[in-house]
Amino acid sequence: MEKELVFGHQNPDTDAIGTAIAFSYFVNKLGCNTEPVALGEPNDETAYALAKFGFEAPRVIKTASDEVKSVMLVDHNEPQQSVSDIDKVKVSRVVDHHRIMNFNTADPLYYRAEPVGCTSTIVWEMFDEQEMEIPEKLAGLMLSAIISDTLLLKSPTTTDKDKAAVEALAKIAGVDYKEYGLAMLKAGTNIADKSEDELIDLDAKSFELNGNNVRVAQINVVDLPEAMERKDAFLKAMENASKENGYDMFMLLITNILDSDSEALVVGSDENKATFEKAFGKKLSDSEVKLPGVVSRKKQVVPPLTNAFEG
Amino acid sequence: MEKELVFGHQNPDTDAIGTAIAFSYFVNKLGCNTEPVALGEPNDETAYALAKFGFEAPRVIKTASDEVKSVMLVDHNEPQQSVSDIDKVKVSRVVDHHRIMNFNTADPLYYRAEPVGCTSTIVWEMFDEQEMEIPEKLAGLMLSAIISDTLLLKSPTTTDKDKAAVEALAKIAGVDYKEYGLAMLKAGTNIADKSEDELIDLDAKSFELNGNNVRVAQINVVDLPEAMERKDAFLKAMENASKENGYDMFMLLITNILDSDSEALVVGSDENKATFEKAFGKKLSDSEVKLPGVVSRKKQVVPPLTNAFEG
Repeated sequence: MEKELVFGHQNPDTDAIGTAIAFSYFVNKLGCNTEPVALGEPNDETAYALAKFGFEAPRVIKTASDEVKSVMLVDHNEPQQSVSDIDKVKVSRVVDHHRIMNFNTADPLYYRAEPVGCTSTIVWEMFDEQEMEIPEKLAGLMLSAIISDTLLLKSPTTTDKDKAAVEALAKIAGVDYKEYGLAMLKAGTNIADKSEDELIDLDAKSFELNGNNVRVAQINVVDLPEAMERKDAFLKAMENASKENGYDMFMLLITNILDSDSEALVVGSDENKATFEKAFGKKLSDSEVKLPGVVSRKKQVVPPLTNAFEG
Repeated sequence: MEKELVFGHQNPDTDAIGTAIAFSYFVNKLGCNTEPVALGEPNDETAYALAKFGFEAPRVIKTASDEVKSVMLVDHNEPQQSVSDIDKVKVSRVVDHHRIMNFNTADPLYYRAEPVGCTSTIVWEMFDEQEMEIPEKLAGLMLSAIISDTLLLKSPTTTDKDKAAVEALAKIAGVDYKEYGLAMLKAGTNIADKSEDELIDLDAKSFELNGNNVRVAQINVVDLPEAMERKDAFLKAMENASKENGYDMFMLLITNILDSDSEALVVGSDENKATFEKAFGKKLSDSEVKLPGVVSRKKQVVPPLTNAFEG
């Protein structure tokens, strides 16, 4: 079997990295020859999860076509979120829980998407369908991915299937998922020793919304006021990044993982700021707005922004 | 649960209609409220299969958005092969075995694609995963779809999974699949009482290949020379259809289902005919060429045409 690479999106999170490792294990058991890799270094939360369950961070790649002819994607499908030379390789399999956008192939492929909270939930289901055993440590890693994406099952993206997966995986991994999950999430909230430039790029995704290049970044914290003390520096970093990369709007969502409330900072033209205000039905005050209960970029941020930019 | 429609592609074949019925049954058992419909009347082969297993032909729809807000697609995803107002409805689920092309959604969805011979093979797998029983008659209809798409497991698109599905479904349906399959395929080969205009539209799909609107139609026969007696009339019908619908190239594949050989007829500009010749490495003689062993549009026609038009 010719070797293939398995990876998640740019600016990888625990789902992107953890599910790449899990899915690579799964397809290798079915006879494939894959290596899980990543499009960036693990963030603090992911590093915590990898260390906890005894995994090395996957090798970071910049391009794929110099190594392989074919790849498998997890936790994304949009080309601009993928490896830079995605157009030069064949995609043989995708497992994802996002919308499908600008994803075109020349040949039939395996594509498995479900509107659930985390890609690892789908991979857990696939193990179950194949009656394949999940190793204890891998179960811990997949559990970490689901806890991360669903903020301990509190995000509105959470489904009954995610809950069932968490119960089952925690049992295999032998951990108390609430206790472990909070510790893992907290490990990702240490913003004190990172620059604003780093923080706005840690978990950031670009979306093309009606011709506009919109960047949406998210930071998890346990102390919102502490984060907001750095507001001016965040705004400056977002302005610089927008100039450098041609973002028409840059939104930073700062989420308190303990009470699921967020503050948003927004940089962009007056017109785009007005579109943002239309999207959320709220006025920005000095580039800032409170978004209580908003924790999911996918479910609570991208859909209203898409509608506002398109309408 | 709000009602949704389930349907296959335009110019429906036995997979499009049979799998719409099967998938609708499947998701309704899971709690959905769907009706299987079709984007056209069943062809002779499909009508034979429906009658054999006691199904009515599904209701034919021209548009969906006047009835429902959300639909499920089987056996296709490309918008130009779908219902005319596909852009006005949400797609909640797709089950397919084709490439993904120009399929974009605003929200996460269920998408299940596998590179197997027939969509019913995937639905059979889904029944199996859910440990859901397949009713005897429905098994017969799904079996018919797989026999149709794989030409009785002889098409190069056939996988081990299709073979396993055929064995399992034939057992549930209580039929000898070889005997029944040949009778069903033969039921679809009666071209004597159809006009050339009808025959070139019976199983035809449009593909956008590097900006060219390419039409590929296929007819199954048991007597190639008999079909080729109508060559001039076919070419004339193809030329008229091209003018009316703006096809840049029209290819008609006439396949002998008994020995898996085909003749192709091609209409288009000299340049596009040259592209066709490059695709298959064969010269057209008076708009005609023999393509021995070519029976699959998806696997043996569209990929070489795509490469030739793009390169």
